[in-house]
Amino acid sequence: MEKKIHTIATLETNSFSAHLDEVILRDGNVGKRIRIRHPEAAAIIPFLSETDILMVRQFRYAFGRETLEIPAGKIGRGERPDACARRELMEETGHSPGAIELLYSYAPAIGYSDEIIHIFIARELTRLGTGIDEREITSLETIPIRDVKEMIKKGLIQDGKTLLAVLMMDFLGTEPA
Amino acid sequence: MEKKIHTIATLETNSFSAHLDEVILRDGNVGKRIRIRHPEAAAIIPFLSETDILMVRQFRYAFGRETLEIPAGKIGRGERPDACARRELMEETGHSPGAIELLYSYAPAIGYSDEIIHIFIARELTRLGTGIDEREITSLETIPIRDVKEMIKKGLIQDGKTLLAVLMMDFLGTEPA
Repeated sequence: MEKKIHTIATLETNSFSAHLDEVILRDGNVGKRIRIRHPEAAAIIPFLSETDILMVRQFRYAFGRETLEIPAGKIGRGERPDACARRELMEETGHSPGAIELLYSYAPAIGYSDEIIHIFIARELTRLGTGIDEREITSLETIPIRDVKEMIKKGLIQDGKTLLAVLMMDFLGTEPA
Repeated sequence: MEKKIHTIATLETNSFSAHLDEVILRDGNVGKRIRIRHPEAAAIIPFLSETDILMVRQFRYAFGRETLEIPAGKIGRGERPDACARRELMEETGHSPGAIELLYSYAPAIGYSDEIIHIFIARELTRLGTGIDEREITSLETIPIRDVKEMIKKGLIQDGKTLLAVLMMDFLGTEPA
């Protein structure tokens, strides 16, 4: 176990922070650790039909490029993971789900972050919104889940939560189709 | 696309850094973004036999708890991903692989990091080392891959790269057994 001595410096945005800590390492020496303090997050695989899901194309500043992803976002203060998943689906795609189901909760980057992502599956979508959140989303796409799996076989999907969501659904046999 | 105006502040350790940038958002407003600049990393699923893999138990400071993981680590300057995977396997488990094979490369945390993790499968292990790196590793465990999958079904594995490695192997049908 590593033990914090003190926090040397902190960076902050509205939604999360990064800290540089001085710590006592396992061998008794002193070292430095960067840790991201991040709220939990929710991601959602939205089934438009038994075969097709909604995905968003989005420019990711920290990653430096555009990615194809399932909708996701940070959980607000006091918000429940399932409420966050529904809200993000609405904001990013204009759709509201009937039923949603928790698929898995996992930690994407344990080396430098305390983030946990809860992945949900959404079914029985209703289109309510007229537009998508253009501050975040470049385009909204309807893609057969079979094609997403083909993209994965070709190494074309890079986003961890999207990969994990599709593979976990396949592994647990929880797909609608 | 979001465009950097300037970096306000930076945190640094020996191996990576965190930056607070002021950026122009897609709607023309100015905002702040935290980004981790991280070297690429390699993770490796080490098959000790056709049925059993080696895993490490490790305290993760940023995540604040101990996790059960496959061996992994950051790629050194000028090091190739496969060389890094072999080195980390040796350092963390004392084993050297005969053959190793790239399974997938993915981005674990596109919201705030540029990290890419290359996941390898290792076979034909030879035990060379006498000890494990006790600064990092709490214990080294030999676990049937079938048991790892059962743990996943029960939601007991939290580490993203370990989940993705096991599920991807299952999905692509690349297991030795």
